[in-house]
Amino acid sequence: MCRLFGSMTRSNLRRTVLSVLGVFAVCQTFPTPNDRDRMMKAEQFEFMGGNLLLTNKETKVNDILMKIKTKEIAEGMETGKFPPAMHFFSAKELIKQSTVFNILRKLPKGAALHLHDYALLNVDWLVKNATYLPNCYICFTAAGGIRFHFFLRSPQKRLSKCSEWVLLEEYRHQLENVTEFDNSLFRNLTLVTENPEEAYQSQNIIWRRFEDLFKAASSLISYAPVFKTYFYEALREFYHDNVLYIEIRALLLPVYELDGTLHDKEWSIIAYQEVAKRFQHDNPDFMGAKVIISTPRKINNSEMKTTIFEAMKFYKTFPETIAGFDMVGQEDVGHPLWYFKNELLIPREVGVNLPFFFHAGETDLEGTSVDENILDALLLNTSRIGHGYSINKHPMAKRISREFKVPLEVCPISNQVLMLVTDLRNHPAANLMAEGHPMVISADDPAAFGACGLSYDFYEAFMGIGGVKAELTTLKQLALSSIKYSAMSVKTKAECIKLWLRKWDEFLDEVLDMSNRDEL
Amino acid sequence: MCRLFGSMTRSNLRRTVLSVLGVFAVCQTFPTPNDRDRMMKAEQFEFMGGNLLLTNKETKVNDILMKIKTKEIAEGMETGKFPPAMHFFSAKELIKQSTVFNILRKLPKGAALHLHDYALLNVDWLVKNATYLPNCYICFTAAGGIRFHFFLRSPQKRLSKCSEWVLLEEYRHQLENVTEFDNSLFRNLTLVTENPEEAYQSQNIIWRRFEDLFKAASSLISYAPVFKTYFYEALREFYHDNVLYIEIRALLLPVYELDGTLHDKEWSIIAYQEVAKRFQHDNPDFMGAKVIISTPRKINNSEMKTTIFEAMKFYKTFPETIAGFDMVGQEDVGHPLWYFKNELLIPREVGVNLPFFFHAGETDLEGTSVDENILDALLLNTSRIGHGYSINKHPMAKRISREFKVPLEVCPISNQVLMLVTDLRNHPAANLMAEGHPMVISADDPAAFGACGLSYDFYEAFMGIGGVKAELTTLKQLALSSIKYSAMSVKTKAECIKLWLRKWDEFLDEVLDMSNRDEL
Repeated sequence: MCRLFGSMTRSNLRRTVLSVLGVFAVCQTFPTPNDRDRMMKAEQFEFMGGNLLLTNKETKVNDILMKIKTKEIAEGMETGKFPPAMHFFSAKELIKQSTVFNILRKLPKGAALHLHDYALLNVDWLVKNATYLPNCYICFTAAGGIRFHFFLRSPQKRLSKCSEWVLLEEYRHQLENVTEFDNSLFRNLTLVTENPEEAYQSQNIIWRRFEDLFKAASSLISYAPVFKTYFYEALREFYHDNVLYIEIRALLLPVYELDGTLHDKEWSIIAYQEVAKRFQHDNPDFMGAKVIISTPRKINNSEMKTTIFEAMKFYKTFPETIAGFDMVGQEDVGHPLWYFKNELLIPREVGVNLPFFFHAGETDLEGTSVDENILDALLLNTSRIGHGYSINKHPMAKRISREFKVPLEVCPISNQVLMLVTDLRNHPAANLMAEGHPMVISADDPAAFGACGLSYDFYEAFMGIGGVKAELTTLKQLALSSIKYSAMSVKTKAECIKLWLRKWDEFLDEVLDMSNRDEL
Repeated sequence: MCRLFGSMTRSNLRRTVLSVLGVFAVCQTFPTPNDRDRMMKAEQFEFMGGNLLLTNKETKVNDILMKIKTKEIAEGMETGKFPPAMHFFSAKELIKQSTVFNILRKLPKGAALHLHDYALLNVDWLVKNATYLPNCYICFTAAGGIRFHFFLRSPQKRLSKCSEWVLLEEYRHQLENVTEFDNSLFRNLTLVTENPEEAYQSQNIIWRRFEDLFKAASSLISYAPVFKTYFYEALREFYHDNVLYIEIRALLLPVYELDGTLHDKEWSIIAYQEVAKRFQHDNPDFMGAKVIISTPRKINNSEMKTTIFEAMKFYKTFPETIAGFDMVGQEDVGHPLWYFKNELLIPREVGVNLPFFFHAGETDLEGTSVDENILDALLLNTSRIGHGYSINKHPMAKRISREFKVPLEVCPISNQVLMLVTDLRNHPAANLMAEGHPMVISADDPAAFGACGLSYDFYEAFMGIGGVKAELTTLKQLALSSIKYSAMSVKTKAECIKLWLRKWDEFLDEVLDMSNRDEL
């Protein structure tokens, strides 16, 4: 349907837009069947990306893409196995076989703006590389979890509620089946399981597991040599998934050396900066990374005050690396934003700029104090809304987000795995997409979910959330929005758009080539 | 929060409303934390029923109700067993123990406007009464289903793909465990099962089972003596559930006598009319019932033409009993509304009034021809929208429904059991409730879901869909809307409101009494 606007001149388009908008006037009287075409055009025009003009080349690619997409949806309906309607853990293998997914992998997706420090990179890398480094010790927690630490010598002291530390090299040596053991590490470092419905019977249960695997992963990643390599490899993973730039929420936990030296937050920021620069140097067609300083939402007011002053300092000292500030952890059990209003208003009061990127509305519960986060995030001047899952239940907040273009960072797989929604066609972003609401797609914690990069989430957004209506224009809009709403400087954004346009053109050519070679 | 408006005079209210609406003006500039109170009031004002004034008595009852509600929600969060987040089959026993539910049972709920002929009444009645009538035969289908028929003499002829007919009286006589057999009949006549996720792996699978149980039930109910008693008992069930009036979608299938005489559609209409009048005579504080003539959406265009002419005739002949016309059956596999546009426009063309009550948007799929039903139902001038589950994905249709007050008939349990949504806090009506969108709550096919009357659906709407924000005003608005949007005449509506107000007042007294006696 978007093609309606595809081959038009700009003045034609303007006329069409006006006639489409005329439907609103029609609405003064009850519409009749004669209004059907205009109303359907208006609805498609309002859909995310529906107002973008398509070039001839784009129109061709859209035809190819939509033909494949429609076929895959029909197949899903027929077999009853439609990936966006299934749990990602069972859907993943089907998605990998999808032609749409393989096109989306090639798509230049712009920026990934909602990611967390310890769940960026495929866990395979951690298991197969980090845990094989010399001096890596493991211990087992009473609750069935694992922790790692690198020691120069075998330590005498245990962690509380944990087994003794065992040198992994020795431990593996005495095992009959190392592969099975490594698989068990993988399972411990992700939420992936065969029967998620049985394993995770409530949101609280899965959140405790989620927090535990973060502790396990961070105990590995906080070792200085792992820390830097992990981030470099993560950048590589996103880069290979055709992501141009990322922003990560980082706790900036202490990083340690083998001799026990502990590094502070500043060291971590400089490390992120240095690795990102090195990666950009190695891959000039990558736009880099920024850090959103994050703190657990369970801290108290005086800790928050200290944290805010620290964040202001870091934002001033490292303007190229620090994007702003956020809070992390399960919203339903943490302090609501308003609890910290005095602390969060400090930057405004002292006249210092500190952009906020608040998680808000990552909840199914309406009307609780936590549910007020969505409005409060906006009142506290957030630059984007992390998740914003419940925004449709808040018409006032929704209007502000729309009118003032405060976009939502939508993370489909995360919301499904963390049990906010089962069938992704029901994701609240489906309504928002239909209304062209400002949003970007992100991956949250791909490593924890057994995903990788951004393409799986783009698949769910394009096939599930967007329904049959999402077309090439929708993908283009999502990519462009991710650059527009990033924390990059105006100058860098312009460069990024230029780079993206080049990659977009290459992508279009590649799809046409594949189609010509009958590879689609 | 509604109490903000509770103790106000009307002129005070007007001022408050204006100041609340002033928030929209504030939105011309980005709001600040100082706007918080006003914005939250505005949001609560926009919520369904948020603009209703509460009397002092209502305010007291609201306080009692909200205290219990908040406690039950907190308990649900703590135990991880919150009924609206669970499948109704597992939630039912918990709901029965809920004090909120027991208050909702007493609530005068107004009208139930979306119900189907063969799934009105608790299946227990069918099993324990209808199947124990003399001359009741049963046979078993190859697919594992059952069919009934009443014969004067043992029949020679089998149904296609079925076992021989067996006289139930004799069959039961030779059974060791009749209770177990009767339970199996119950299971065959409902969708109820212990593990619905395993039993029903796709929407298509559950819809085939759903259609089969309709066939089983209709084979019992189509026997003339059962037909009339079934409807009388159904009215009694809704009446005891404090419903004042119902509208049923009826297929008007042939009804037969023991001697084989077949009755036509007109006979059925007269039977419905006669039974409803008798019930009203026996219970003068009941407002009666109307029939929406319904036809399967799988028929062809020429059959539809005949059906429409017939419906116009019946609507003219039985204006007190016939409310209008609709189509039934799984939307995703049937013809879309637009397929029948020529036939459905006949009444308009010939200048005859035939109100439509179209099912539309009972689908998770966006952008298919079936998904266009939601807009087409409106363009074809529907009086209400059956389900309208997908309306949020259609901003144009949503605006029309809102501006011209074409309400949605929301059936929470039906949508969950038929696999459109898992956690009812995610039901699209949650957004609509937050926006005060016109809607009524109904039960669809309570018998098939193991529900009874309207209270279970009210519970899901009040506790799940409405979240913590739904208060007594929400319930009042839902009840009043159900009367307003019914097919009753203006005069009958006025009577109904009068009756409802009396019952509402009794309800308030009863809650206060129970509270005073510490029974809540």
